[in-house]
Amino acid sequence: MPERLPDQTPVWDLSSVISGLQAERERWRTSHCRSIESGGREFPAPPAVHAAIKGIVAALFPMRLGPDTLRKEAEDYFVGSTLSCALGVLYEQARLELGGRSAATDPRAPALREAEAARQAETIIHGFAAALPAIRRLLDSDVEAAYRGDPAATSVDEILLCYPGVAAVIHHRVAHDLFLRGIPLVARIITEIAHSETGIDIHPGATVGESFFIDHGTGVVIGATAVIGRNVRLYQNVTLGAKRLVKGDGSMVDHDTPRHPIVEDDVVIYAGATILGRVTIGAGSVIGGNVWLTHSIPPGSQITQAQSQAGPEA
Amino acid sequence: MPERLPDQTPVWDLSSVISGLQAERERWRTSHCRSIESGGREFPAPPAVHAAIKGIVAALFPMRLGPDTLRKEAEDYFVGSTLSCALGVLYEQARLELGGRSAATDPRAPALREAEAARQAETIIHGFAAALPAIRRLLDSDVEAAYRGDPAATSVDEILLCYPGVAAVIHHRVAHDLFLRGIPLVARIITEIAHSETGIDIHPGATVGESFFIDHGTGVVIGATAVIGRNVRLYQNVTLGAKRLVKGDGSMVDHDTPRHPIVEDDVVIYAGATILGRVTIGAGSVIGGNVWLTHSIPPGSQITQAQSQAGPEA
Amino acid sequence: MPERLPDQTPVWDLSSVISGLQAERERWRTSHCRSIESGGREFPAPPAVHAAIKGIVAALFPMRLGPDTLRKEAEDYFVGSTLSCALGVLYEQARLELGGRSAATDPRAPALREAEAARQAETIIHGFAAALPAIRRLLDSDVEAAYRGDPAATSVDEILLCYPGVAAVIHHRVAHDLFLRGIPLVARIITEIAHSETGIDIHPGATVGESFFIDHGTGVVIGATAVIGRNVRLYQNVTLGAKRLVKGDGSMVDHDTPRHPIVEDDVVIYAGATILGRVTIGAGSVIGGNVWLTHSIPPGSQITQAQSQAGPEA
Amino acid sequence: MPERLPDQTPVWDLSSVISGLQAERERWRTSHCRSIESGGREFPAPPAVHAAIKGIVAALFPMRLGPDTLRKEAEDYFVGSTLSCALGVLYEQARLELGGRSAATDPRAPALREAEAARQAETIIHGFAAALPAIRRLLDSDVEAAYRGDPAATSVDEILLCYPGVAAVIHHRVAHDLFLRGIPLVARIITEIAHSETGIDIHPGATVGESFFIDHGTGVVIGATAVIGRNVRLYQNVTLGAKRLVKGDGSMVDHDTPRHPIVEDDVVIYAGATILGRVTIGAGSVIGGNVWLTHSIPPGSQITQAQSQAGPEA
Amino acid sequence: MPERLPDQTPVWDLSSVISGLQAERERWRTSHCRSIESGGREFPAPPAVHAAIKGIVAALFPMRLGPDTLRKEAEDYFVGSTLSCALGVLYEQARLELGGRSAATDPRAPALREAEAARQAETIIHGFAAALPAIRRLLDSDVEAAYRGDPAATSVDEILLCYPGVAAVIHHRVAHDLFLRGIPLVARIITEIAHSETGIDIHPGATVGESFFIDHGTGVVIGATAVIGRNVRLYQNVTLGAKRLVKGDGSMVDHDTPRHPIVEDDVVIYAGATILGRVTIGAGSVIGGNVWLTHSIPPGSQITQAQSQAGPEA
Amino acid sequence: MPERLPDQTPVWDLSSVISGLQAERERWRTSHCRSIESGGREFPAPPAVHAAIKGIVAALFPMRLGPDTLRKEAEDYFVGSTLSCALGVLYEQARLELGGRSAATDPRAPALREAEAARQAETIIHGFAAALPAIRRLLDSDVEAAYRGDPAATSVDEILLCYPGVAAVIHHRVAHDLFLRGIPLVARIITEIAHSETGIDIHPGATVGESFFIDHGTGVVIGATAVIGRNVRLYQNVTLGAKRLVKGDGSMVDHDTPRHPIVEDDVVIYAGATILGRVTIGAGSVIGGNVWLTHSIPPGSQITQAQSQAGPEA
Repeated sequence: MPERLPDQTPVWDLSSVISGLQAERERWRTSHCRSIESGGREFPAPPAVHAAIKGIVAALFPMRLGPDTLRKEAEDYFVGSTLSCALGVLYEQARLELGGRSAATDPRAPALREAEAARQAETIIHGFAAALPAIRRLLDSDVEAAYRGDPAATSVDEILLCYPGVAAVIHHRVAHDLFLRGIPLVARIITEIAHSETGIDIHPGATVGESFFIDHGTGVVIGATAVIGRNVRLYQNVTLGAKRLVKGDGSMVDHDTPRHPIVEDDVVIYAGATILGRVTIGAGSVIGGNVWLTHSIPPGSQITQAQSQAGPEA
Repeated sequence: MPERLPDQTPVWDLSSVISGLQAERERWRTSHCRSIESGGREFPAPPAVHAAIKGIVAALFPMRLGPDTLRKEAEDYFVGSTLSCALGVLYEQARLELGGRSAATDPRAPALREAEAARQAETIIHGFAAALPAIRRLLDSDVEAAYRGDPAATSVDEILLCYPGVAAVIHHRVAHDLFLRGIPLVARIITEIAHSETGIDIHPGATVGESFFIDHGTGVVIGATAVIGRNVRLYQNVTLGAKRLVKGDGSMVDHDTPRHPIVEDDVVIYAGATILGRVTIGAGSVIGGNVWLTHSIPPGSQITQAQSQAGPEA
Repeated sequence: MPERLPDQTPVWDLSSVISGLQAERERWRTSHCRSIESGGREFPAPPAVHAAIKGIVAALFPMRLGPDTLRKEAEDYFVGSTLSCALGVLYEQARLELGGRSAATDPRAPALREAEAARQAETIIHGFAAALPAIRRLLDSDVEAAYRGDPAATSVDEILLCYPGVAAVIHHRVAHDLFLRGIPLVARIITEIAHSETGIDIHPGATVGESFFIDHGTGVVIGATAVIGRNVRLYQNVTLGAKRLVKGDGSMVDHDTPRHPIVEDDVVIYAGATILGRVTIGAGSVIGGNVWLTHSIPPGSQITQAQSQAGPEA
Repeated sequence: MPERLPDQTPVWDLSSVISGLQAERERWRTSHCRSIESGGREFPAPPAVHAAIKGIVAALFPMRLGPDTLRKEAEDYFVGSTLSCALGVLYEQARLELGGRSAATDPRAPALREAEAARQAETIIHGFAAALPAIRRLLDSDVEAAYRGDPAATSVDEILLCYPGVAAVIHHRVAHDLFLRGIPLVARIITEIAHSETGIDIHPGATVGESFFIDHGTGVVIGATAVIGRNVRLYQNVTLGAKRLVKGDGSMVDHDTPRHPIVEDDVVIYAGATILGRVTIGAGSVIGGNVWLTHSIPPGSQITQAQSQAGPEA
Repeated sequence: MPERLPDQTPVWDLSSVISGLQAERERWRTSHCRSIESGGREFPAPPAVHAAIKGIVAALFPMRLGPDTLRKEAEDYFVGSTLSCALGVLYEQARLELGGRSAATDPRAPALREAEAARQAETIIHGFAAALPAIRRLLDSDVEAAYRGDPAATSVDEILLCYPGVAAVIHHRVAHDLFLRGIPLVARIITEIAHSETGIDIHPGATVGESFFIDHGTGVVIGATAVIGRNVRLYQNVTLGAKRLVKGDGSMVDHDTPRHPIVEDDVVIYAGATILGRVTIGAGSVIGGNVWLTHSIPPGSQITQAQSQAGPEA
Repeated sequence: MPERLPDQTPVWDLSSVISGLQAERERWRTSHCRSIESGGREFPAPPAVHAAIKGIVAALFPMRLGPDTLRKEAEDYFVGSTLSCALGVLYEQARLELGGRSAATDPRAPALREAEAARQAETIIHGFAAALPAIRRLLDSDVEAAYRGDPAATSVDEILLCYPGVAAVIHHRVAHDLFLRGIPLVARIITEIAHSETGIDIHPGATVGESFFIDHGTGVVIGATAVIGRNVRLYQNVTLGAKRLVKGDGSMVDHDTPRHPIVEDDVVIYAGATILGRVTIGAGSVIGGNVWLTHSIPPGSQITQAQSQAGPEA
């Protein structure tokens, strides 16, 4: 007769696992020259950024993406209350990002660095808050573009409620503004939230013109230095990527070297197309599905799969 | 010595941001002829639809997708309790969709329109509830198809617990029923919930026969007018899309114009294949990976990448 | 004047829906020879596995993926407290998986089977706990590989906070360990959690060497018998799949038949490439975007789309 | 060897318990002439009222009883957003109370009764909203009275954060306003929330003047027809109750018959005192601890335990 | 200039606090002869009991104390689903109580003791489930008694929604049934939940007849061996307590020695009355407020404060 | 036909309510000389203190008051992890209390005051953490006293799980330590949490010796300057209060003037007894139920109700 019954869960050797994990952390920290023995969080926290961006999205479109009990007459109160909270959280996350970064490079005393980080964070969030109306205006152009671009859409409202491409662009436009103001890590966390929810991966550094629409969207990748004009439409699995990441001398390219495509106004890129390198897709061009393109094309081009593989020099 | 310490978060100029956002909303509403000054929600709310569909999924497969404390002898009670709640929520969302839609087109007094929307919503949910056993039967055929189709599957139970393709099909079959009954927006919210969770984007309008299986599934897109026969199997990144959205006269096609493929019984379509337009894939055909296909093919065809690019007219 | 107002929600005919669903469940159980009339859960529960894996991830990287209030001096306490809880949950899920499996095949009395399942589950979780430090070490190599492989990355910390490829690999390495120890269903639930969050679908059976990096990642599929060497880099939409699932005699291949690629050390595979079958990609090879490859290639190969379609015999 | 292990929870005979409970509900409904076969909630729901009153309390004292992230510059937005939500909930609960009540007495068609209930609920909530500033002013007088009355208090802020007597009075003043406007059941639910949290039981019908303070408070009971003047102070376990509930003819007194004490301005009543019946405690009187009093006393009286038992006629 | 800013929270000396607390726990365990080095919970868990009792309360009165979305036509499903869950939790808690108790006294092997505890727990919960309809019937008599006894009550529904005395009695009747069946610790946890919410402290051992009503209730204490007849009414701060706890030889009385009052049918006891010892309050008696009574009184007595202090022998 | 249906909730005049409430807040702030226009919280937040105290309680008694999944081998990890979090929260609340207090009195610049508050808060929490083992030891003596004092108790474990008196004393001993260290507002919030849950109101300033037991407890009030010896036992509704709060010259007594009783070792005070003023209850005395006592009594006294009313001078 066994003494221990199945419901008596066994005892794990926790202390050896814990010390094993501690040794691994120690090894990592030593090899990355991190000697901090104690203290709190040094990076932005994804859950905090998540709360902030969801608040900002709701403040941008209160009646459609806010709480379902919201009433029109209370819109402004909701917007103010929600923004006050979300901006406060963003400010804290900006301080964490700036403080963590400066700790690695700024030889001044911690107190001075912290004060500097706080001042910068304040400037960033002030600027961001003031930019929100312009961001909303851009997003309205995106929603209208989506409505015009999809015959299956039955109303502009459906677009906001259901289209993952629009959700990804809302997150991108907010993140891009924060990226330009100097908190790229917070910005990246925001776009990764959208990536996880929609399968659309737009680097916050990418520049995107008004009336942008991504249909279906899963698998879309847009790189950090891509530049997209006005009234551009993409479908699922489109990549606007880099051709090479290694320079002639074998070293990695710098992270702000222009290496992703420029897509001019009024271009349509169908599903699965891959465009790589600092090439220019001329205005009004149409890129067919699954096309593989690594050279520039003039305005008004119509590229199909066969053409693309031959290349312009063929 | 600075007077303000880092932990004293700064004051944002909320009122100007709020009025800026208000002005943008006003501009949008004016340009879309929406003059409503006050009132509550006019569209279905995604979180409410989310709660309802999760309840329905649990009621369809109580022991495997219901709560882990559920016991077999309480199955019917759980199903009844869960459905009562979920159907009530769906009914409310149906009223919101029907009421919002009629407000734009129905010249009758609000009270009459509301009463009409309520009556329609009741009819829809009644019909949907009665269809649930048949939906479950179809889903059982899908689960068995998945089990037969994947050598990595070790049990039918694993299919329901782990396969995103099966999760997407459960959401689709429920949404398609609601789509046909007249609440396409609620239906679309349901399929987008599955899209976000699985990367599989099936428009609720698509018609899908029994024993349908999608393996892996990320990046699959199936359009609104697609028709899929029995015993069809798809892999990741397959697109069943539309070829063109603009008619000869430059206007957009109507949203119910048949423009997506017909896939007959017993077809297999491998990863990355793209099939566009109102073409017919004959019964028993096999479409190879990455194939690009824009014409019909007869039953029993075996299409590989090289063939597909030449096309029948070559 | 209608007697029922819109807010009086109608009455659904619950009993007929419930009995209809009950009949469908009965039909299913009869056809699958399940005669159990009562009792509790027989399979692992995805929400429980979710809680466990999130705890394990936080214990592996406490300061970066743990709660934002965690402080360095409390790391070990957090790790111990979190692991104690997570291992207990995993043990229960392991018992459910082992118990459910043995019920189908083991002719002994339930009590003996249960005791046996408990003993096995204990052995599995003991082994898994002891392996955690080594898993952490492997993951550190992955983080460093990601940092070296992406010029857009600004710090190793950004990698852990933002890169879905790293998140997917963390889940995979934990799941793979559990898969090898004999609880493939729990393992699969873990990788599907990552699949849903990242769009990256790595079967827990796949063998992956150190310093593995997946960039962007949406749409990546790696099959159950794939073997990946050290220092391999993949991009979005890469498939390492099986060529055929049906043997010459028409029967399905066995689920552990080697049928997915072997990728040797230092290989890079660009976006959209599809490699099918038990082929070997020689060390140091570079596979171009959208390449379709179904044969082995020697070390140091550079494959582009045109080549791949012709094949080596061309 | 037992076949069932301890962790296999037994099967309960649910169906007989359920039918037994159903029979008891049926018996009750029959004996109370309730024949409703189906439908939704007919009474206010305590959890909904709880959410509403907590919102109203936070809106009354935003910086001290609102969320800890609230900032002064966002006060008005918080108040507007919170009130919009809370008033909406209160309106629904008012409709439920009025509708349920009229169903029992109003012979008109349900639709007319519902419309009437909605109209009344709207009037009530409008009036209540307009009264909130005056309620806040009264509550400020209570806070100041508490501060003056307790030497242990170190600041007016401590009063709002810590004093159960003040919490009970906040709930009472809100509930009393709603009671007077015609929704006594909602009002009673509010005062019972305070009763549960503080041990202080003030009937919402009681009339209470400004600058009212209850110290400690557990066990205080104030009846429905009590009238309390300005600047009155009570301690724990004070009862202002009714002497008799049965009239000379043996029937119960009517629920609005004045039967509780009148306490004039500037009275202090120490712990454990019991005052019963429609007696008047003259202005400025001091009632000692544990006093038992069932007759009126003139202004300026000082009653101790010995006196009270003798009574004025002694 | 200080190096550490206010927002850099200091480091606590956790390890010495932890070892200090560990030493105290060790001291306690040694002094109470508890040598267990590892393992899980040995006592019922108040949060689990809380969840179970709230489910049982909702199942007893589904439309009034259940969720506000519940509809009449789904009552039985809700009851079945809720009870299945609540009984399962209670069974686990019963096993914990019985197992923990037997560990201290039963010399058999743990496995045998556990199996015995499981068998007993099953018997207890079976019996309890079967008793629920009778408990509901008793509670209906209490609700009616409350309605008859309080002129301020406007409907029987108000009683269930608002009266703490009724809430306390619901918890007591459930707890008393479990107490009699042999799990007094679970029973006590249930009555303490009610005590915390209502201020009414009824020991689960007390025997209470039908149609019992406690008005206001804060401060009521009813001891473990009290016996209360039918149609008894109490007010706040009534104590039915024990006179002495120490026997003539200086030892403590046994915990089941009858030492609390017997209150016969139709007795009313007003606020603040204290009745101590194994005395009998004859049927139909009325005990006045604040009365202190330590001797038996015959049926039909009317006791006021003056009388009680003198006592019958005066 | 009415244009508005019942479900169209009406529009409230939010802006006038908001400005009305704003005006009232303004009036209050002006009259209390608070001119702050913007900024964050200035007082401790009850929900934060609630989280901290619940963590500390769980860390003091991990296996009995901690989470039910806790296992003995993980106790220290749980204690460390929980304390790290709880002490961090307490430290923040201490800073808020000290900062808010100094803002009113300290003429230095805000930055200096904040830095000073942070330093003091650190000292306080350091000292408190170091005191936790001694607090636990005292609490063990209380648990044993409760077990010895109540014949209804069946085990020491039942005491911790079920006795509100013990819960109140745990909160008090923690709060008293913090009170003595200089954060009385945080301390008071802690005791009010216990007051709300148990009905027992012990001011955090009260000094309480070891082996203290309160049975039942509802309505107990113990004042700020009370001093209680070792091995004292109280029952419900006992008041240890102040006799007068107004000095001869009409001014209020100072808040630290000794004005509550001194209760020496081994005293028992039965239910409802009221002891007022700076009197001394000699060691070993027994105070009967409902006794009213305002003078000192020598050691070994036995006071019953009749005696107490006469007083010593009689």
